Amino acid sequence: MESAICVLVSQFKAYAGSDGSSDTLSREEFHRLVPAELPNFVKNAADPAAIDQLMSSLDKNSDGELNFLEFWQLIGHLASKHGGFSQ
Amino acid sequence: MESAICVLVSQFKAYAGSDGSSDTLSREEFHRLVPAELPNFVKNAADPAAIDQLMSSLDKNSDGELNFLEFWQLIGHLASKHGGFSQ
Repeated sequence: MESAICVLVSQFKAYAGSDGSSDTLSREEFHRLVPAELPNFVKNAADPAAIDQLMSSLDKNSDGELNFLEFWQLIGHLASKHGGFSQ
Repeated sequence: MESAICVLVSQFKAYAGSDGSSDTLSREEFHRLVPAELPNFVKNAADPAAIDQLMSSLDKNSDGELNFLEFWQLIGHLASKHGGFSQ
């Protein structure tokens, strides 16, 4: 379980590190991450408008950046849906 | 990233399925999971009292069971600490 967690952290960092703050995902970084890393779990992962909408719903403080825990909420909901747990 | 998420979901289910509700972790299941799967990420993972305290802090509705999203909060905080993100 720890190794899977490490994978998620390091992949988040790989995308978050490409511009601006290396600890947060900018809109551009999120647009790169979703189709590449979550193509099956995110509905319409290839549609930029859908990704924009998803980003806005996750960016609680509306600063145009997703921090790790905001991102973690997203993958938790995707994981929960994937696992068939009641939402 | 999707495969790492699948690992976490299936490992949660493996522990959650051993007694009672197969979608939630009982206290006993949590006591088995933490030392086996999170020995380095959880402080004092071998100490039953520490695990009890952790369980109580996560079980928001105090029903003695952790659902998937309650568990996801825990691993998010562990991941965030592991990744060196500001909490």
